[in-house]
Amino acid sequence: MLSKPVFPVEPWAVRESTFDPAALPQTESVFALSNGHIGLRGNLDEGEPHGLPGTYLNSVYELRPLPHAESGYGYPDSGQTVINVTNGKLIRLLVDDEPFDVRYGTLRQHERLLSLRDGYLRRTVEWTSPAGKTVSVVSTRLVSMTHRAIAAICYEVRAIDRPARVVVQSELVANEQLPAMSNDPRAAAVLTAPLAAEDGELHENRALLVHSTRRSGLRVGAAMDHIVTAPGDVWTGMHGSEDTARFTATVRLEPGQSLRLVKFLAYGWSSQRSLPAVRAQVEAALVGARATGWDGLVSQQRAFFDDFWARGDVSLEGDPEVQQAVRFALFQVLQASARAEHRPVPAKGLTGPGYDGHAFWDAESFVLPVLTYTDPDAAADALRWRHSILPTARDRAKQLQLDGAAFPWRTITGPECSGYWPAGTAAFHINADIADAAIRLADATGDEEFERQFGIELLVETARLWRALGFHDGEGKFRIDGVTGPDEYSAVVDNNVYTNLMAQRNFRGAVDAVGRHPERAAELEVTYEEVVAWRRAADSMYVPYDEPRGVHPQSEGFTDHIEWDFANTPADRYPLLLHYPYHDLYRKQVVKQADLILALHLRGDAFTPEEKARDFAYYEPLTVRDSSLSACTQAVIAAEVGQLDLAYDYLGEAARMDLDNLANNTGNGLHVASLAGAWIALVAGFGGMRDHGGQLSFAPRLPTGLQRLAFTLCWRGRRVKVEITGSEATYSMVGDGKPVNLVHHGRSFTLAILGPVTFSIPPIEAGTRPTQPASREPVSRQRGRIIQSAR
Amino acid sequence: MLSKPVFPVEPWAVRESTFDPAALPQTESVFALSNGHIGLRGNLDEGEPHGLPGTYLNSVYELRPLPHAESGYGYPDSGQTVINVTNGKLIRLLVDDEPFDVRYGTLRQHERLLSLRDGYLRRTVEWTSPAGKTVSVVSTRLVSMTHRAIAAICYEVRAIDRPARVVVQSELVANEQLPAMSNDPRAAAVLTAPLAAEDGELHENRALLVHSTRRSGLRVGAAMDHIVTAPGDVWTGMHGSEDTARFTATVRLEPGQSLRLVKFLAYGWSSQRSLPAVRAQVEAALVGARATGWDGLVSQQRAFFDDFWARGDVSLEGDPEVQQAVRFALFQVLQASARAEHRPVPAKGLTGPGYDGHAFWDAESFVLPVLTYTDPDAAADALRWRHSILPTARDRAKQLQLDGAAFPWRTITGPECSGYWPAGTAAFHINADIADAAIRLADATGDEEFERQFGIELLVETARLWRALGFHDGEGKFRIDGVTGPDEYSAVVDNNVYTNLMAQRNFRGAVDAVGRHPERAAELEVTYEEVVAWRRAADSMYVPYDEPRGVHPQSEGFTDHIEWDFANTPADRYPLLLHYPYHDLYRKQVVKQADLILALHLRGDAFTPEEKARDFAYYEPLTVRDSSLSACTQAVIAAEVGQLDLAYDYLGEAARMDLDNLANNTGNGLHVASLAGAWIALVAGFGGMRDHGGQLSFAPRLPTGLQRLAFTLCWRGRRVKVEITGSEATYSMVGDGKPVNLVHHGRSFTLAILGPVTFSIPPIEAGTRPTQPASREPVSRQRGRIIQSAR
Repeated sequence: MLSKPVFPVEPWAVRESTFDPAALPQTESVFALSNGHIGLRGNLDEGEPHGLPGTYLNSVYELRPLPHAESGYGYPDSGQTVINVTNGKLIRLLVDDEPFDVRYGTLRQHERLLSLRDGYLRRTVEWTSPAGKTVSVVSTRLVSMTHRAIAAICYEVRAIDRPARVVVQSELVANEQLPAMSNDPRAAAVLTAPLAAEDGELHENRALLVHSTRRSGLRVGAAMDHIVTAPGDVWTGMHGSEDTARFTATVRLEPGQSLRLVKFLAYGWSSQRSLPAVRAQVEAALVGARATGWDGLVSQQRAFFDDFWARGDVSLEGDPEVQQAVRFALFQVLQASARAEHRPVPAKGLTGPGYDGHAFWDAESFVLPVLTYTDPDAAADALRWRHSILPTARDRAKQLQLDGAAFPWRTITGPECSGYWPAGTAAFHINADIADAAIRLADATGDEEFERQFGIELLVETARLWRALGFHDGEGKFRIDGVTGPDEYSAVVDNNVYTNLMAQRNFRGAVDAVGRHPERAAELEVTYEEVVAWRRAADSMYVPYDEPRGVHPQSEGFTDHIEWDFANTPADRYPLLLHYPYHDLYRKQVVKQADLILALHLRGDAFTPEEKARDFAYYEPLTVRDSSLSACTQAVIAAEVGQLDLAYDYLGEAARMDLDNLANNTGNGLHVASLAGAWIALVAGFGGMRDHGGQLSFAPRLPTGLQRLAFTLCWRGRRVKVEITGSEATYSMVGDGKPVNLVHHGRSFTLAILGPVTFSIPPIEAGTRPTQPASREPVSRQRGRIIQSAR
Repeated sequence: MLSKPVFPVEPWAVRESTFDPAALPQTESVFALSNGHIGLRGNLDEGEPHGLPGTYLNSVYELRPLPHAESGYGYPDSGQTVINVTNGKLIRLLVDDEPFDVRYGTLRQHERLLSLRDGYLRRTVEWTSPAGKTVSVVSTRLVSMTHRAIAAICYEVRAIDRPARVVVQSELVANEQLPAMSNDPRAAAVLTAPLAAEDGELHENRALLVHSTRRSGLRVGAAMDHIVTAPGDVWTGMHGSEDTARFTATVRLEPGQSLRLVKFLAYGWSSQRSLPAVRAQVEAALVGARATGWDGLVSQQRAFFDDFWARGDVSLEGDPEVQQAVRFALFQVLQASARAEHRPVPAKGLTGPGYDGHAFWDAESFVLPVLTYTDPDAAADALRWRHSILPTARDRAKQLQLDGAAFPWRTITGPECSGYWPAGTAAFHINADIADAAIRLADATGDEEFERQFGIELLVETARLWRALGFHDGEGKFRIDGVTGPDEYSAVVDNNVYTNLMAQRNFRGAVDAVGRHPERAAELEVTYEEVVAWRRAADSMYVPYDEPRGVHPQSEGFTDHIEWDFANTPADRYPLLLHYPYHDLYRKQVVKQADLILALHLRGDAFTPEEKARDFAYYEPLTVRDSSLSACTQAVIAAEVGQLDLAYDYLGEAARMDLDNLANNTGNGLHVASLAGAWIALVAGFGGMRDHGGQLSFAPRLPTGLQRLAFTLCWRGRRVKVEITGSEATYSMVGDGKPVNLVHHGRSFTLAILGPVTFSIPPIEAGTRPTQPASREPVSRQRGRIIQSAR
């Protein structure tokens, strides 16, 4: 059990005021900085102690063997895994030859502050060496949102009580020693020293190291440059070896004097470009950063975040803890994606090696809905990445004897990396999830050019896949058999409701896109016969329904299974998959994560309110939330059916997932989709925002714990602001824009720049609060806030 | 494609008259000798050329890693694999210093003869060395059925045309170099030199080597002794090293003179006994063999087989090719099991390393039904082995959160060794198959003592498993969800008809056994509540039925799936699992092997004749027989529904599986269950033998190709002989015995020693012959025999 640090509640920061070595894995993830291109875990400047050192570059990976006890056709035999690249954030300090190390001497003061407005991490330390010399260190670190290839650190050490000779060593280190990460000795061997030295150059304050990965053949350049400011004579020097470059600056400081080191760090990588090209790229980035300067980088960063918060902030009254968590969540979602630019948004962003650095459906189904309404350019970039891996997805479809494109369940650059097909490849819903994201983006932006260039091809190729996967049965119903839905405690089932309804949306989206872009359709060789078939499949899509029980089975036959014996499942046997065989989970009614409930959200247009209420009441007692991709969806539907306080509890869980280390594995990286889920829980839950059929609608309703909720959405080039209180909701347009048609609780209205429109919120009859499996209830927000105030 | 040697058709032998090096893998399996305890592949005496050297001892295995790309709860992380032990069948020959090697010089004559009556393999060779010296070699090899630990070889070399100095080297060799067997380098490493030398002794004509396995900790002793007979001065000597012992005899032979070497070979092994104990065991066996002498071993062997054939022979008129194949099949079934004695009967017997030497349900469902009626003591021994691994099976049940015992899908000494649980552990039917074998044996022998000691515990523990696996649904039906039936092209399905009906038989068998042995039931802590629950589960067992189609779905929902696209599946894409993903196979109607059809056979009492006919007609076009465990069952049901010529074709396939290398993998070992299936196809197919509810019944009917079929069954201490012609069947009792009640085509009658009883065979209306998937039709026996007569 990792310890859970308590971050004081404040609106625009996450702060740690006492140093807890046991919490390092978690805090390194929470304090990770990233722009979606480069990611630095929040390791201490001096490298030790650490939970897990981590420097990640989006799509820099190594191949590792995927062994199979019994092999099978189409199993991938190697997988991609993110690697820890050359660490450039190391700055070591010696005080009179004594290494600055918080494990020795006396740590008189410690603070780490992640500023959500400034986009930097600042560490402030006062430390007395074993020999009795006291220094303070203020280190500010950022990964630039405006200079994509750049990170920078401003490191200032000051002598406090007595004169001290300080030596500052700033390093680049490749092939850092890591804690053991895999129990497969072959995989461990691959990842122990993944980088082979190719080139290096040392030049006064500047150094460059170029390495390449041994199997995946990627070339990675890292470079650093330094500006030293100090009183008196500063001696500096640069040394290096194959895997290291070290810049040293030393000076004698009188009490009150300080040495300030600004370190610019640049990364460049490529699977194709030559060594000179990669070198040139890194050097150019470094020159650019140095020209902008530290202060310039800081002010650009602030401007970037100011702009984002103006667009995307969610503010609320009544729960400062959730307020903080939601801003942290949005901050991290942005960090994971802002500058990913045609590269994936991994499940952990660039904050840790969890899930091998793979991207899953999390991106399209949780992250992109947020980006679509807050940073649509980043959403478009993420879909451009999907478009870029279409060739690999087409090959995979062929290998699987299917048509169109079969996107991988997990990957970094396109190939399927799933080692267990029933919970990987069989989860074909990822294809509809990608289509869904493309449709949503087109609806929300009205950007026909993006759809013409990229979206239509995603829609057409996935529609082709679904057509090959399904078939019309004797009665004409379109069935999709043998797939795995979102819930990973069932696998390889027939007619998963979520999958079938999302495939229906996929078909219809493809038909619509083809209608809007006939020339592109011709280029993609879409035939009339295909379009007719897609329409017919969509119109006759089979959605199983359990008439006697009056609910939708998650998939055909699901409700006939025995219910999991929750009463005899102790709390310490969760997550279940670590304590029970898949065999036992698959054949019983037990739900890892929202599946049918997610269909109620994303395909809410396919259900009546009464069905939603009955389905929600049925699945709540079966859903154990062993996945972090569940609470937010349960919040959304709980809110819709009037279970507002339950929704509020789920919101809390989604939002505080990493700040409170709720899954005990934040140390492997943040749960980016759950963080995105905090926004979804607020906006789609309490805001009741839906976008079915391209119509933006709201059905706001607050839980008792919140007095006010306000958010802004980007919608077809406009900014729509929504403010909700317990009794009414006010809609207004921020800035310019033509009038837009919206819906409030089923009532259509037109919003123009003339002024805000206010509606009252109709009451809802809340039934009995449904129960969850024993020991799996969400933490009550009411209780949570009491604890908070007692801190 | 391995070449398929043509063995001339003869009733009591399998003979090879020309030497075909490409056929060596197959012929080494076909000519393998075994008593179920020791197995020697039919390698040439001189070791080379070879397909695959092989010397196996039942249950001598090594552990190898079972790697998983994504691990899961309850996955085994190491598996057992049979190893090639110390090779004692090597006898090298030098003629005037020229090694006898059929690849050099001139092979003037070559014959290998497997005598099914004598139980030995005789090789006769005439060879002219590159230097022009001609010798003949006659080598006779047997693995003794009467001396369980003994094999022996009589090797006679004769100078033909000119004087020759011959040197005969007889060896024991541990850690022989083998062709690469695995593409997992870690597994290969484990198996390259699996034996560590522990002890050795050389003593004139005798030598002993003791080794142990490195991980599994088994101790293996091998010893040899020699008797040399030759004219004139024979020089002999013994030399050795850690892994080798070599006895050398040399003499000068005048034309017509011969040297005769009798080699006695003894093996002993143990996981527990000390080095002195294992040495003593091997030495004792050797002394015993030497005392019996070569001629004694040969005559005992003949007596053993005479007895077996008197009990178990099946004779037929009209198809000498099938006659030969059926006798070969029975011979090999006996070799796999006769002296296994509390050890398993592996899928390949002891004839090759296929399937890692594991035992599966093949033993209980195919081999034991034959042994039960031909060698019931061997059947009882096989079930004693299952009884002996109950502790491991109970542990596995606990690990899987079940009750009772969960037998492994594949194993050597008990632990689950399946590396892919959906097609392994989930195939829980193996537990009912074991119960079925125990019930059958009790019914057939009337041996209450065996049931009291062993059978009841197998029945009780498996009944407990089924109770934990299934549940009564809202309507009271007992459902068993999430299991894999016999057909491996479906997995993890609900209410597999075969599984449910076999579980029903398992429940009822347990209830009956408990009723017969109340004290034992008390020892096994069987409660009244349990018995009531078993009875209730059996009585309310759910058997899905597809009303609109009028057939039984193999499992719930199976018939709703789309049919495999057989028309577009080329012949070279079989077996399908090598060319299509499991995902594709699992979600479509395509059947690897008899599943529902096997239920029609083993639980024929649960179906009406009309249901059988409709079900058979439905599944024939879906069944591809990518498993060798299918043709015999299809033969049985084809015969029952009147498709006699189709049954005959399937009989041919089952019987000639290995002689004709039909699956192209006989080189890895024989298909013992398919060979057993030849007997099943004849006796249960054309003899119509059933044993439902402990009542032995017959419904004989011959195909046009057979004029007569006769077989003898052991039944409750009696021998019942059945002779069938096209128009009538005659039943008689061989030897002594009380009268017994039998059934002929539904008509009950009493058979006594007074004399035979003859009945006419009623006609049957044969409908249209069903079709099979394109390119998967069985070879027509009519066509097969035409080819045969043209040879």
